[in-house]
Amino acid sequence: MSIEFIDNSPGLSDVPGFRVGASACDIRNKANGRLDLALVVADQPCAAAGVFTTNDVKAAPVRLCQRLLASGGSVRGIVGNSGNANACTSVQGDADAAETARLAAAALGAPSDVFLVCSTGRIGELLPMAKVAAGVAEAAGRLSRVSAEGRRAAEAILTSDTRPKTCTARFVQGGRTVTVSGIAKGAGMIEPNMATMLAFVCTDAEAAPAFLKEALRTASDDSFNCVSVDGDMSTNDTVLLLASGASGVKVGPEGNPAATALFREALGRVCFALAEKIVGDGEKITKVVSVEVEGARSRADAEKIARAIGNSLLVKSSWFGEDPNWGRLADAAGYARTGLDEAKLDIHYGDVPAVLAGRPLPENKPSWKEVVKAARFTVRIGLGLGDARFRLLASDLTDGYVNYNKSE
Amino acid sequence: MSIEFIDNSPGLSDVPGFRVGASACDIRNKANGRLDLALVVADQPCAAAGVFTTNDVKAAPVRLCQRLLASGGSVRGIVGNSGNANACTSVQGDADAAETARLAAAALGAPSDVFLVCSTGRIGELLPMAKVAAGVAEAAGRLSRVSAEGRRAAEAILTSDTRPKTCTARFVQGGRTVTVSGIAKGAGMIEPNMATMLAFVCTDAEAAPAFLKEALRTASDDSFNCVSVDGDMSTNDTVLLLASGASGVKVGPEGNPAATALFREALGRVCFALAEKIVGDGEKITKVVSVEVEGARSRADAEKIARAIGNSLLVKSSWFGEDPNWGRLADAAGYARTGLDEAKLDIHYGDVPAVLAGRPLPENKPSWKEVVKAARFTVRIGLGLGDARFRLLASDLTDGYVNYNKSE
Repeated sequence: MSIEFIDNSPGLSDVPGFRVGASACDIRNKANGRLDLALVVADQPCAAAGVFTTNDVKAAPVRLCQRLLASGGSVRGIVGNSGNANACTSVQGDADAAETARLAAAALGAPSDVFLVCSTGRIGELLPMAKVAAGVAEAAGRLSRVSAEGRRAAEAILTSDTRPKTCTARFVQGGRTVTVSGIAKGAGMIEPNMATMLAFVCTDAEAAPAFLKEALRTASDDSFNCVSVDGDMSTNDTVLLLASGASGVKVGPEGNPAATALFREALGRVCFALAEKIVGDGEKITKVVSVEVEGARSRADAEKIARAIGNSLLVKSSWFGEDPNWGRLADAAGYARTGLDEAKLDIHYGDVPAVLAGRPLPENKPSWKEVVKAARFTVRIGLGLGDARFRLLASDLTDGYVNYNKSE
Repeated sequence: MSIEFIDNSPGLSDVPGFRVGASACDIRNKANGRLDLALVVADQPCAAAGVFTTNDVKAAPVRLCQRLLASGGSVRGIVGNSGNANACTSVQGDADAAETARLAAAALGAPSDVFLVCSTGRIGELLPMAKVAAGVAEAAGRLSRVSAEGRRAAEAILTSDTRPKTCTARFVQGGRTVTVSGIAKGAGMIEPNMATMLAFVCTDAEAAPAFLKEALRTASDDSFNCVSVDGDMSTNDTVLLLASGASGVKVGPEGNPAATALFREALGRVCFALAEKIVGDGEKITKVVSVEVEGARSRADAEKIARAIGNSLLVKSSWFGEDPNWGRLADAAGYARTGLDEAKLDIHYGDVPAVLAGRPLPENKPSWKEVVKAARFTVRIGLGLGDARFRLLASDLTDGYVNYNKSE
């Protein structure tokens, strides 16, 4: 009755009812043989749901996915590419996204089937469609449930990531095994409500699109929406969830309640692990800091403060320098303007108090200086105003980030 | 009938009715002889107004100033120090700010007089009051209208600034000359609604506190509140305006309308010039970029987009790299979430269009690449939705900034 969790699994090839394939079609025009196109195909049309960027500027593939899922939520699979975001590409971008979906369906000999499309990479350039066509054909020819192909698919969607991001969760219900598996890419433009991050999650549970949508929204709020690398939200952020039903275990309002609870837990574990991997592999970061705000009047207030801290250039620079400058934390907490009371403010590094009820405790400095030397540590902000809390996983800001992003 | 503007003037010593003095009292405890305390004294109690940080966490001197000005707006002068912000210093901080004001009044032999206090520097440490007492006494002994002393006062309030920031505007009305002069410090934590920035503006116009407050608020909205270096708003931001009345020219509702209009113009010029100097001297910056958003439904929408762009790490890094990556501008404009219409979006670098009505114009890239090579340039975002606009002066983000702020 518990979840088995496999970190760094082969990814989507773990899930019965799906096959995956990847190809190198040189979308970056660098002739370096890098994998850049992934195809995920259900054995038959299946239920699907998505969560998308809330940016006013949405890439063409995001618009395509939103349109398709609004009209019912049954799809055949996903085509994902790296190297080009197909964003800010006007009407030609929409045509290219639609053509990519059509190519995938045609390659399977099922021209009426519906494919979701996801792109990530540079904004404002047209997709090289002849290359995409060749890539889709090659990936379709490789479709399988072989672990090596699952790993290739996880690699194909990466951009400035330094490593693939995969995991799998399984549970047994009534003698049947249910699998939830995901792959993701992150690195730059990571922030609120997702950034240039893509995550594809597949399961063999059986579920209606409406339940998948609600479950994915909940899991995303507690995972992808609680990480920040640079505060930039992208035009392409997408999390997709596809359910093949191949396990024969039904989840959701019409399913078994125990199975449904285990499914939610498995989905939550997979999404959180992928989100952690995204922030841990942020561009040129050296620290992952868990910013935990508690004692707030509302979760919204706690979130505002956590994001103000996690996105402050001065705070992030001081984390890079391992300088436990709590004054910058207090300053950022204050400019979130939630109405905090300085006389009730507690600040801890790990378990070491730096400020209690507004009073600095400089005598503890040697202890908290030790805390910030770790690659992962926690800062805790206590507001003393209520019971609400929010946790944000944030990274430091390094000279390496700036130099890496000087040009693209 | 026009304004004479003197850039890099001696500063507050230019204004009849005021004397200034500065001292080096080693608040930083570095024994380096650096000027760190400035005293501005009116010949007699005068009208005053202030605009302050909206951070929930306000430094003790900010609380003191707000309390004093709320109770009438007549003061004798200002004590300003650098090296210590007297922020997050609990009740002892309030006592120290009050004691600083008392010391200044006592040094003038007028113990009932009211002094405003401003501090800037590191957060969370107590002011070294014995040193402050010595510094106030020394500065009081030097009070004069000598230009060299004005320049010393402008220097004494600096922190990581690389140069003093001063200017003076004058106009003649009915044969009488009116002077408006200001000094400022900026550098780090510069953003919305002011950051660790201090600005002291003095005039010999005659005006009631209520008018000064309204005029200063208007001038600040169009100057100090339109610059951004790092998006961090400090606990100490303060702009003060003192009016000695020594010119005999009355401005405001009871004053001469022509003189009042000239006064507003002079005040606006002084505030804008100081704000420009602040962003131009941001920590380790190499570019000053004027982000001009137009065609918005409201000024608030235009401001949201300008700030999203001006505070985006990816945008700022690309400015540093002289990489005219307009995709990052579009992305940031979109995540301001004002409801922009991508199909109406125009983006210009200087006068060169990069995107018109949502269509990229890659053929213009050689021209816009030239634009971003300059130390100062403009990016213009046209929304095509209305008539409102907002202009933000922003800086780039450099590896130097990160390394400078790694520790303090």
